[in-house]
Amino acid sequence: MSIVTLTTDFGTGDGYVGAMKGVILQRAPEARVVDLAHDIEPHNIAAGAYSLCQAAPFFPEGTIHVAVIDPGVGTQLRKPVIIDSGRHFYVGPDNGLFSLAVPNPRAVYAIESPTFMRPEVSSTFHGRDIFAAAAGALAAGVPAQHAGAVVSLRGRLTLGTPRSDGATTGMTVGTVVYIDHFGNLITDVSRADLPLNPRFRVGERVIERLSGTYGDVASGELVAYIGSADTLEIGVREGSAARILGLGRGAHIEILAG
Amino acid sequence: MSIVTLTTDFGTGDGYVGAMKGVILQRAPEARVVDLAHDIEPHNIAAGAYSLCQAAPFFPEGTIHVAVIDPGVGTQLRKPVIIDSGRHFYVGPDNGLFSLAVPNPRAVYAIESPTFMRPEVSSTFHGRDIFAAAAGALAAGVPAQHAGAVVSLRGRLTLGTPRSDGATTGMTVGTVVYIDHFGNLITDVSRADLPLNPRFRVGERVIERLSGTYGDVASGELVAYIGSADTLEIGVREGSAARILGLGRGAHIEILAG
Amino acid sequence: MSIVTLTTDFGTGDGYVGAMKGVILQRAPEARVVDLAHDIEPHNIAAGAYSLCQAAPFFPEGTIHVAVIDPGVGTQLRKPVIIDSGRHFYVGPDNGLFSLAVPNPRAVYAIESPTFMRPEVSSTFHGRDIFAAAAGALAAGVPAQHAGAVVSLRGRLTLGTPRSDGATTGMTVGTVVYIDHFGNLITDVSRADLPLNPRFRVGERVIERLSGTYGDVASGELVAYIGSADTLEIGVREGSAARILGLGRGAHIEILAG
Repeated sequence: MSIVTLTTDFGTGDGYVGAMKGVILQRAPEARVVDLAHDIEPHNIAAGAYSLCQAAPFFPEGTIHVAVIDPGVGTQLRKPVIIDSGRHFYVGPDNGLFSLAVPNPRAVYAIESPTFMRPEVSSTFHGRDIFAAAAGALAAGVPAQHAGAVVSLRGRLTLGTPRSDGATTGMTVGTVVYIDHFGNLITDVSRADLPLNPRFRVGERVIERLSGTYGDVASGELVAYIGSADTLEIGVREGSAARILGLGRGAHIEILAG
Repeated sequence: MSIVTLTTDFGTGDGYVGAMKGVILQRAPEARVVDLAHDIEPHNIAAGAYSLCQAAPFFPEGTIHVAVIDPGVGTQLRKPVIIDSGRHFYVGPDNGLFSLAVPNPRAVYAIESPTFMRPEVSSTFHGRDIFAAAAGALAAGVPAQHAGAVVSLRGRLTLGTPRSDGATTGMTVGTVVYIDHFGNLITDVSRADLPLNPRFRVGERVIERLSGTYGDVASGELVAYIGSADTLEIGVREGSAARILGLGRGAHIEILAG
Repeated sequence: MSIVTLTTDFGTGDGYVGAMKGVILQRAPEARVVDLAHDIEPHNIAAGAYSLCQAAPFFPEGTIHVAVIDPGVGTQLRKPVIIDSGRHFYVGPDNGLFSLAVPNPRAVYAIESPTFMRPEVSSTFHGRDIFAAAAGALAAGVPAQHAGAVVSLRGRLTLGTPRSDGATTGMTVGTVVYIDHFGNLITDVSRADLPLNPRFRVGERVIERLSGTYGDVASGELVAYIGSADTLEIGVREGSAARILGLGRGAHIEILAG
């Protein structure tokens, strides 16, 4: 009884996600279809990659993760693939969407066999016509190797790497890689990148210390903490740091030694 | 182990959808409840009908589709019904919501039997008190015929039919029947309605040719293509055609012979 | 095959809800995870409590309800708990979130045992690291008593109680306790609180009678009715009362004897 998860930028107002679920269940009536996230910002592959890598690894072995943030749908810009991570399967477009969740795939297969597609494939909805059908085939027990040729991934996406000027000033510059639903700024700075007693410059504001959680500051105040992805985040207790600071993805955070 | 799908305009911020799921599972604990879409525009029966007809047909035989976009709830304006399409059951208000998904029902039953309702029926939430209960009864194996009298559907809804002036100018006028999450304008013009080498006048803009998919044009440009519903759509690559053109449902698209 | 429901303010654009589902299914692969609501207003415990009490009671006996609206996450302000209601389990922070759904718990357990947590517990995402893990343990059959000490709930939340001036003028003042997706104003006034032939003063407007349902008034008109929670609601047919009246949670409604 396979678990199939879905991550898309389709929202939940149209029939698109529903059509994918139907195609999966038509081919694997016993599959359990689980929504991961459907309100990924439209066309934002990086946001999808980030959400996927925060959720997918927690699922049981054998889970099939379908993800469709696919601005290049129907073009030769990207190929439909199945990625075997060693623990899970990932199904979707080869456009970098899986780079964070599966940095080192065990195997990648092009989706070429008719068994892994609907009989008619539209040029604008591969989520339904290829990816859901391929997930249904996997869930029904068809081996991934039957999908098509072994290929290499072409799509790549990396989170930034924090820059450090080393010994001179002790300053590290991190980058905001994601803004979540609460307006928290999630950065690429890991706990190990932080100096002792760090301070943080964010836009025009300075945060004087690293806290444990939101509740360590007063309501409405800025707070720096190590978030659930084990990287530095900047938040506002019971508020939105993104809105209050006017910062978005790509913004820089300066980390100063105490 | 029945599959029960849910399509509503209830959003996902209140307990309404959850209450429906509880009522279904209370009556059919083995049922698998699948969300189709809950962010249908409030009270927009046509949008619900369109979303439903894009998703419901893909599900396995025997699936029970519950849909509740029901501005006439509690009135005599519409009756609660179960529609047997021959392959699926559809449960909801007789207000046109099922016209597109089931243009020719095999049988329609009024929901009249207490077995298909909760013991107390509110006048404002038939989604919970009638439709979820009826779906639970079906999922538990109660035959649809037990619901009530055989009736005819009164609610009707049709997508437009493109008008053509025939031989004179070769011009066809289509109508936008739906705007999706991406801002794509979905029309009632099928592939067969298009002349050879068509051009398209949309608002003040002209699109010079039919493309295969978004990626055939540059980012931000208008694109005309046959969408996943097999009808003409107008989109903007990595953008929203609805916003850029300022057009909505009901807008006209002129199709000109090459 | 346990049912586990999820209610959060996490939205559906990030990986947070997905991570919780993964943790549950990792521990209880046969569990059926059901979304109740994820678009609760961020940090709004009262809104979460209200949504939960409108949906949770309808589920079958033995259902495990996980709810995470948790502005105090990681602090000593609130403790993670499992509440045994006698019919259901509720898992989440002790901050009042469960007060409406379970006014009189049969037993409350602190979540202290490592069996009910992930090996590493972050200070900002107890939804994943404690509550989902605890729900997974319960779903896998671990008795709630193993979670930790029996405790008393500290978080309390009550809906208002309508005030009446008794015999003098016959006027009752109710309070808006919730605004739903449609903009309906849901009050704390039960059917029994209403006089014969009531009239309602809402902001500057007067509604002259109690109706049965939206369809009893013309489109766009104000309507007072007993809603699906069996309390007085003020709505607008095919419109939003909250927007038209400019009223929100906490607003007062005066009920006048006919």
